[in-house]
Amino acid sequence: MTKHYKIYKNVKIGENADIGEHCVIGLPPSGASDGELKTIIGKNAVIRSHTVIYAGNVIGDGFHTGHGVLVREENMIGNDVSVGTHSVIEHHTVIEDGVRMHTNVFIPETTVLKKGCWIGPHAVFTNAFHPLCPIVKKCLKGATVMEGAKIGANATVLPDLTIGKGALIGAGSVVTKDCDPESVYSGIPAVKIMAVKDLKCKYDLIERPYETEEEK
Amino acid sequence: MTKHYKIYKNVKIGENADIGEHCVIGLPPSGASDGELKTIIGKNAVIRSHTVIYAGNVIGDGFHTGHGVLVREENMIGNDVSVGTHSVIEHHTVIEDGVRMHTNVFIPETTVLKKGCWIGPHAVFTNAFHPLCPIVKKCLKGATVMEGAKIGANATVLPDLTIGKGALIGAGSVVTKDCDPESVYSGIPAVKIMAVKDLKCKYDLIERPYETEEEK
Amino acid sequence: MTKHYKIYKNVKIGENADIGEHCVIGLPPSGASDGELKTIIGKNAVIRSHTVIYAGNVIGDGFHTGHGVLVREENMIGNDVSVGTHSVIEHHTVIEDGVRMHTNVFIPETTVLKKGCWIGPHAVFTNAFHPLCPIVKKCLKGATVMEGAKIGANATVLPDLTIGKGALIGAGSVVTKDCDPESVYSGIPAVKIMAVKDLKCKYDLIERPYETEEEK
Repeated sequence: MTKHYKIYKNVKIGENADIGEHCVIGLPPSGASDGELKTIIGKNAVIRSHTVIYAGNVIGDGFHTGHGVLVREENMIGNDVSVGTHSVIEHHTVIEDGVRMHTNVFIPETTVLKKGCWIGPHAVFTNAFHPLCPIVKKCLKGATVMEGAKIGANATVLPDLTIGKGALIGAGSVVTKDCDPESVYSGIPAVKIMAVKDLKCKYDLIERPYETEEEK
Repeated sequence: MTKHYKIYKNVKIGENADIGEHCVIGLPPSGASDGELKTIIGKNAVIRSHTVIYAGNVIGDGFHTGHGVLVREENMIGNDVSVGTHSVIEHHTVIEDGVRMHTNVFIPETTVLKKGCWIGPHAVFTNAFHPLCPIVKKCLKGATVMEGAKIGANATVLPDLTIGKGALIGAGSVVTKDCDPESVYSGIPAVKIMAVKDLKCKYDLIERPYETEEEK
Repeated sequence: MTKHYKIYKNVKIGENADIGEHCVIGLPPSGASDGELKTIIGKNAVIRSHTVIYAGNVIGDGFHTGHGVLVREENMIGNDVSVGTHSVIEHHTVIEDGVRMHTNVFIPETTVLKKGCWIGPHAVFTNAFHPLCPIVKKCLKGATVMEGAKIGANATVLPDLTIGKGALIGAGSVVTKDCDPESVYSGIPAVKIMAVKDLKCKYDLIERPYETEEEK
C-alpha cells in the first residue's frame, strides 16, 4: 500500500530509511521558507507514524522515533539515538550518541544529553526558573545529563543543573540541584540515598545492575 | 505542495489562517451531525499538524496550537491563546485572553484559566475527587487559575480550588488547596514558601522577575 | 467526506466500527510482515483519529480510544475498555473488561489491569527497577492493578507491585510498594492514609462515594 507522508525540500535522508504514515519531515520553522534550512538524517532511520521533524536538524545514523514524536529545529543529534512515542524535543538541544528517550519525554531548548544516558517515560526537563519574566529569554538554560545517567519515569528536572555521570534518579523525583556522579537520588526534592555501586539486583540475577562509568 | 487536512461543515475560520497537515477541524462530538454545531476560530490562527478541534468551540483571534493538540467541544477560548504540542483541552472550559499552555498540558471540563496565566509543560488538572463514584458527573469541578498565575512543569492540581492572581506553583508540586495571590507554593502537598515579590533573579539580570498583578 | 486511514492485512474488526482520520490499524511490529499476525477487534469499536494499533492484538467489543492513542502488539484486551487520548499501551499487557484509562496514560509491557479499574490522566506505570542493566529484559515486571482500583492523575507506579482491589491512589503519588485493598494511599512514597469505606463525599451528595468490592 502507498504511504502518505510529506518531505519538504533540502532534506537529506541516508539509505535504508523507514518512514511511517502521516509523518512530516523538514517542516520550515516560523519565518523560514521551504528548503531554506538544510536537514540531515543519517542512514538506517526508522521514523514512525505521525512524527514531525522540523528543518535545520543534523541527525546521525540509526535514528529511531516512536509515533507522534516532535523534533523542533536546529538540534544536534548523534548516532543511535532513540526517541519514544509522543516525546517532544524543542530546538537547540544537543543529544549525543546512544541516548535513549522513552515515551512522552519533554526536552526543552539548551538541554544537553550526553552519551548513552537514558530518560524514562514522562520525564520532564525545564529551562526557565521564572516563566513569563520579561527577560526570560536571556536566561533559558536547560539541564545537562552526563554520560550514562538514568532519569526515572515521570521525574521533573529543574533548569541549569547537572546530573553526574552514571547517576540514577528515582521515578517521580523532582531534581532541584546538581546530582553527584554514580549516585542514586530520589524524592521531592531529590536527595542522595546511596551510591550506584551499592545497588543490588532485586531478583539476584546479577551481581550488580550497573558498572560505574569508570569501570566501563 | 498540497496539504491534507479536513474541515467539517459550519466552521468559520478568520483570515490569514495557517493550518497544518493532517488536522481535523469541526469534528462533531458524539451524537451531533456534521455541521450541527457551529465552530468559530478568529483571524491569524496557526493550527499545527495533527491537531483536532471539535465542533462547537468559540475561539478568538491569534489562536496558536502546537502539533497533535486536542480541543474537545464547547469551549470558550479568548484571543491570543496558545496551546502547546500534545496538550488536551476537554469540553466546557473557559480560557481567557493571553493564556499560554505549554507542551502536553491536560485541562479537564469546567476548568477556568483567567487572563494571562501560564501553564507549564506536562501540568495536569483534575475535576473529580472520587472517580467512578456513581454520581461523579454531579460534582465535576475543575480548578480556577487567576490572572497571571504560573503553574510549574509537571504539577498536579486537585479539583475545585483556586490559584490566586500572580501565584507561582513550583515544578512537580501537587496542589491540594487554594493558593493565595502573589505567593509561591511548592512541594507535595504544595505549601506557601514565600511571596512572589521577594523572588530574585537567579542570574542578577533584573531586579525582580515579576511585578505583582497590582503593580501592572 | 472520505476518511483517510489505513488497515493492514489480517485485521478483523466487528460490526458497527467507527474509525477516525489518519488511523493505522494492524501495523506489523519489527520483523513481522503485513498480515503475518492476526488482529481482532470486537464490535462497536470507536477508534478516534491518529490512533495506531499494531498487529497481533486481541481486543473485545466496545473498544473506545481517544485521539493519537498507541497500542503496541500482542496485548489481550477485554470488552468495554476505553483508552484516553495520547495514551500508550506497550506490548504483552493484559487489560480486563471495563478498564478505563484516561488521557496520556503509560502502560508498559507485562502490566496487568484487572476488571473495572480506572487509571487517571498522565498516570505512569513502569516495569524495570534498573533501566540499562545488561540483563534488564530478564526482569521486566509491571504492576498489577486489582479489580476496581483507581489510580489518581499523574501518579507514578513502580515495577512489580500490586495495588489491591478497590484501592484509591491519590493524584501525584509515587507508589513504591504493594497497596492493601480498599485503602487510600497518597504521597511520595505513597502511604496508607485511610480506608476507602471511610471516604465522604466532599459535597454531601451521597452517603459514600464507593461501595467496597465485597459490597458490590
